[in-house]
Amino acid sequence: MDVQSYMHGVGRAARAASRELARADTAAKNSALEAMAAAIERDSARLLAANAEDVAEAQRKGLEPALVDRLVLTAKGVASMAQGLREIAQLPDPIGEVSGMAFRPSGIQVGRMRVPLGVIGIIYEARPNVTADAAGLCLKSGNAAILRGGSEAIRCNQAIAKCVREGLDTAGLPEAAVQVIETTDRAAVGELITMRDYVDVIVPRGGKGLIERISAESRIPVIKHLDGVCHVYIDDRADLDKAIRIADNAKTQRYGTCNTMETLLLHVAIAPLALPPLAQIYRDKGVELRGCDRARAIVKTMKPATEEDWYAEYLAPILSVRVVDHLDAAMEHIAVYGSQHTDAIVTEDYSRARRFLREVDSSSVMVNASTRFADGFEYGLGAEIGISTDKLHARGPVGLDGLTSLKYIVLGDGQIRA
Amino acid sequence: MDVQSYMHGVGRAARAASRELARADTAAKNSALEAMAAAIERDSARLLAANAEDVAEAQRKGLEPALVDRLVLTAKGVASMAQGLREIAQLPDPIGEVSGMAFRPSGIQVGRMRVPLGVIGIIYEARPNVTADAAGLCLKSGNAAILRGGSEAIRCNQAIAKCVREGLDTAGLPEAAVQVIETTDRAAVGELITMRDYVDVIVPRGGKGLIERISAESRIPVIKHLDGVCHVYIDDRADLDKAIRIADNAKTQRYGTCNTMETLLLHVAIAPLALPPLAQIYRDKGVELRGCDRARAIVKTMKPATEEDWYAEYLAPILSVRVVDHLDAAMEHIAVYGSQHTDAIVTEDYSRARRFLREVDSSSVMVNASTRFADGFEYGLGAEIGISTDKLHARGPVGLDGLTSLKYIVLGDGQIRA
Repeated sequence: MDVQSYMHGVGRAARAASRELARADTAAKNSALEAMAAAIERDSARLLAANAEDVAEAQRKGLEPALVDRLVLTAKGVASMAQGLREIAQLPDPIGEVSGMAFRPSGIQVGRMRVPLGVIGIIYEARPNVTADAAGLCLKSGNAAILRGGSEAIRCNQAIAKCVREGLDTAGLPEAAVQVIETTDRAAVGELITMRDYVDVIVPRGGKGLIERISAESRIPVIKHLDGVCHVYIDDRADLDKAIRIADNAKTQRYGTCNTMETLLLHVAIAPLALPPLAQIYRDKGVELRGCDRARAIVKTMKPATEEDWYAEYLAPILSVRVVDHLDAAMEHIAVYGSQHTDAIVTEDYSRARRFLREVDSSSVMVNASTRFADGFEYGLGAEIGISTDKLHARGPVGLDGLTSLKYIVLGDGQIRA
Repeated sequence: MDVQSYMHGVGRAARAASRELARADTAAKNSALEAMAAAIERDSARLLAANAEDVAEAQRKGLEPALVDRLVLTAKGVASMAQGLREIAQLPDPIGEVSGMAFRPSGIQVGRMRVPLGVIGIIYEARPNVTADAAGLCLKSGNAAILRGGSEAIRCNQAIAKCVREGLDTAGLPEAAVQVIETTDRAAVGELITMRDYVDVIVPRGGKGLIERISAESRIPVIKHLDGVCHVYIDDRADLDKAIRIADNAKTQRYGTCNTMETLLLHVAIAPLALPPLAQIYRDKGVELRGCDRARAIVKTMKPATEEDWYAEYLAPILSVRVVDHLDAAMEHIAVYGSQHTDAIVTEDYSRARRFLREVDSSSVMVNASTRFADGFEYGLGAEIGISTDKLHARGPVGLDGLTSLKYIVLGDGQIRA
């Protein structure tokens, strides 16, 4: 069978399953999630063996060590996949939730009901845990899922897919509710992102290259996250202690995450107080600093920052540092160089905090907190399918609600329009 | 200047204005709306004269009479444009609204703030009132607007644009907040829907041909409404009186609107009771009926419906009629032939009403009310920029909220991630 026929078959089956899933009750969805978790735990050895084969082949093919690392699944990883599914089972079911129901002068009652989007296509790179996570989130939100993992992880993904199907089956839900693409042919992705009749939204998860390519070529709406060029601005009315704690944590708690600070902005009046102790912390942790002239006048060892540095998402122990004259200059810098992901101000000044919250146009805007909090779990969404830097539909961490839509419902008693 | 340079200039100016508008306060936006309304009233004669020239030229060029009709602006139309702007001024400002603010275990408070989308491109056909409506809705929701009206209405649109600019100016807001494209060159539309750096969302308003073309070619997300193939299903547990009233109103109150019923479905047990009186009403109003065999067995004069009829959006005094065996068959018909716009059930049965509300996947789902209620004003949105049959972002009538997005805001006290 050619890839196009195969993918269209997958699409048709997903569309049919999505209609069943949309009306599946909460108990059935939760029981499927629990059964998936149990199957994954039971098959742990099989999953690890499949993963070991994937890893061996990746090494044989000379895949970059960083990518191989990401591919590796441990016994702990298997346990946490199962745990993740059980946590999704425990989240409230978003589907059917009615809000805003109110009477109108005509006598009708109008409100909105939360409904699934339909069929979600997810395209991701090596990490096999995404298979279980994405399956769980789509199922709980009443959506059918078509999952296309990295070809390096194909054996492990198929082993997980078997557990997922078993879970669906146990709960009496259609197996096509979650389909993991069985071919590693790249043409399958091209089909997936253009099957407008069968797929309602595409979620790419992976590196910037993958996401840019998918966004450019997709004929289906994409929920995506591109860059995370996150800023912390230390205002001159900041509490110095909080400022140092936050600027340290936002950069050094993890280097490779999208909500990690990449540029530190400091008010000119506080820079001489805040920069030296911060530079010491960064030096101890091996973070390279690249600064503007005014920053370098305070910390002589700092390298000069180029224009490119202000745009850079390092995802590494590198930080660019800029001294600014006032809040407006900080916000202007963020507007010009930022990626509308997550930006924070450290200040005790009420009016400046209020302006920053209102005027900075990013998916998460913070006062006196580390940018590292921009995360579905930290925000109480329970789990996230990704972080969106788009403005339409979903913005910021995307949890179950981001995989749903709202329809209007109208209750009447025979009302007609005059 | 070539069209591309012109449009990019418009885009850049809109982007810059959008940042000012996003932080404009409610009083400034309302005062601009009031000043626009006053300018339109003052310039009424000038607007009518410009419109008369547009109409004369359209007639000279042999434009279809229906299109010429739509182009005509009356003194009453001018007054209602001004009134529409005043009503938008009276709506609550959606921008800055904070919801869901709650403490998390980490000590941070997380909530969401409503923010503008940015720059909205609106492409519409002849009706000149859209210029004022769209300008008002975009402004109130804090978005910059780029408006591209039909070339037939260019003189009148420019006259309205002058009033809009004057209103912005009076309130100290940037004139580029609302720009009406000055060229009738069709290449301008091609630029507008591909300027991803300058435009955040495209709203096409007009016939299906225009909307399909824009959706297919746009590189920017589109909020659109394609078909309105709306259904009323009369269940056998319907109150006959309500059923007849609703099936009459849904079809005959207006023929050319997207929320008009195009197909009537009847349970087999109620068809012999409901169809004859309804056929009499439709006959008196000149509505042509096209039915399935079982419907034609009850109303002999009915023409046979073809497969195409079930898909048809007549926008005319024609109605297709189908007798079905039960609720599931009705919902299956709606799923297969409907356009996910607006569908209603007439029933006194609690469980069937509940199932219909839950399972019918349309932007508006109704019980015992006419489909004609699917409308921004009737739903209490105050005004609408259009009706969306998409699922992502906005679904159903799109009011001010549909032109906004939600960002996360986080308030902390020095919290860092552990």
